[in-house]
Amino acid sequence: MSKNPSTSKPVSPVDALRDLLGDDIAALNATIMLRMESPVPLINQLAAYIIAAGGKRLRPLLTLAIARALDYQGDDHLKLAASVEFIHTATLLHDDVVDESDQRRGQPSANAMFGNQASVLVGDFLFSRAFQLMVETHSLDVLRILSTASAVIAQGEVMQLASTGNLALTRETYFEVIGAKTAALFAAAAEVGAVVANANAETIQAVQDYGTHLGVAFQIADDVLDYQGSLDTMGKNSGDDFREGKITLPVVMALEQATSEERSFWERTLVELKQNDFDFSNAQSILKKYNCLENSLAMAHEKANLAQQALDKLPLSALRDVLKEIALFAVERST
Amino acid sequence: MSKNPSTSKPVSPVDALRDLLGDDIAALNATIMLRMESPVPLINQLAAYIIAAGGKRLRPLLTLAIARALDYQGDDHLKLAASVEFIHTATLLHDDVVDESDQRRGQPSANAMFGNQASVLVGDFLFSRAFQLMVETHSLDVLRILSTASAVIAQGEVMQLASTGNLALTRETYFEVIGAKTAALFAAAAEVGAVVANANAETIQAVQDYGTHLGVAFQIADDVLDYQGSLDTMGKNSGDDFREGKITLPVVMALEQATSEERSFWERTLVELKQNDFDFSNAQSILKKYNCLENSLAMAHEKANLAQQALDKLPLSALRDVLKEIALFAVERST
Repeated sequence: MSKNPSTSKPVSPVDALRDLLGDDIAALNATIMLRMESPVPLINQLAAYIIAAGGKRLRPLLTLAIARALDYQGDDHLKLAASVEFIHTATLLHDDVVDESDQRRGQPSANAMFGNQASVLVGDFLFSRAFQLMVETHSLDVLRILSTASAVIAQGEVMQLASTGNLALTRETYFEVIGAKTAALFAAAAEVGAVVANANAETIQAVQDYGTHLGVAFQIADDVLDYQGSLDTMGKNSGDDFREGKITLPVVMALEQATSEERSFWERTLVELKQNDFDFSNAQSILKKYNCLENSLAMAHEKANLAQQALDKLPLSALRDVLKEIALFAVERST
Repeated sequence: MSKNPSTSKPVSPVDALRDLLGDDIAALNATIMLRMESPVPLINQLAAYIIAAGGKRLRPLLTLAIARALDYQGDDHLKLAASVEFIHTATLLHDDVVDESDQRRGQPSANAMFGNQASVLVGDFLFSRAFQLMVETHSLDVLRILSTASAVIAQGEVMQLASTGNLALTRETYFEVIGAKTAALFAAAAEVGAVVANANAETIQAVQDYGTHLGVAFQIADDVLDYQGSLDTMGKNSGDDFREGKITLPVVMALEQATSEERSFWERTLVELKQNDFDFSNAQSILKKYNCLENSLAMAHEKANLAQQALDKLPLSALRDVLKEIALFAVERST
């Protein structure tokens, strides 16, 4: 995220969000560092590695921003945001084991550095630690929301695993998978921000809708990014989904219109996983022929618009405005 | 567990416990079956496979038995017992991935049948589901106890991973590892049984002590079993720990007195993992030379005695008596 040197104003809405949250950002980082600590050195090394590798911390920022946008004055939102980040980190650790990834955000993945075994167990540790933090907020609602989201995420991941290489995957099932594996945590992150702020049912529903639509938009954009040219736009390896035979929205769209020759191509590359050096670029050509990336992004934009509309139920504030911009940013980071 | 045909009386204390718990057993099984269900077929297949493979369900039985021994009249103890079983099952699934096991209780392990990927994710699902069940009992105490136990278990597993092939492992560290990876869940399973029954602090401490000592005794016996001759005493593969380079109490004892030739043997087999067909039997001979299995079991017996003494703080009941027998059974199943 570069800054505009002439004015020093942040140009990304994530930076703008961080600016508005002020001291909460340092407090969140401190909570994360303090609470991921363990008496076991290997846990600290691995956790420090993956937490330091960082990323935007978009999910915990949602929790903080929504709590503050609803005028929350306490500090339990920090524990909840850290819980959300720990759950997210645990799923990343387990995902990389499941996907046998050797890269994450342009760095060697934790499993490549520390082994699958440590990644599985440290994921379990962070997941447990997330629930310990939630207990400290004394809110059964929060525990219900995040334990349910965690179960839904695991179900989404298993659905994705089961649908790998399934050329019959429909748009409907694709949206079901990403709704579970990605949007459920965005929705829960937003929801617990409203719950800790004692918001009314309508507001809680509104931010949950915001998180859901934002999460879906974010994942579609992620899936589009995977077929975009450059090797590393957001630190994710271009071509990963293709190599693993994951059926994402652009491919679903291409399959809907595929010639028999193209169908054979997808069959060989995504089902049989027989791929040569030119196949990724061939796949990109087919996606281009049917405008699959543009059409996928158009759907992501629709979701981003729905996310923005949902926030209209919140009181006017600078935070609300930036949360709206984030919805668009989630899509446009890939264009 | 065989029954005595002449009297039809159960001969194992686990069977006796099941008899005393009566309808609770069927209700527990129903809760487990109902609550492990998911809309995702692969989750149901894998969960059914591992749950059906069964085992004694000792940990959830502790929860039920202690709640009833303390005169609990409700049915939240069923949800807690199912939570305990789900956490245990999740750790088994992840352990088998970590250990690259292809057998569990004499059957192909879940990861051998369904793949590591599904095992990791279904473990995550069951873990999340456990917390959903706890939330339904509205007890923050229970959530605190079991989230803390889960974090401790993960730490114990990582400690074990980090100490694999470490010939300098002390008894003290060995007990620290098994206290975390095994005894913490026994202790928590017992503790939540007392908490749901609204027991006083002294009683809660007593059953927690019972669970801790029982768990340590159980794990020592398990580690002894791994070096006993027959291929399958409790469905666990004899020789697994040896093959994986795990340093357990019998080996710690043998190392304390090892000749330089023996030390070279352990170095080659457990550190370098260079093992030939005769090495397991050579290892058994060294353990025999120093009475390591007997001495380990003597320590397990000490722990079983402490477990029994802890229960003296509970009111007299048939359940209390059988829980005491279970402590001894945990050790003697291996003799």
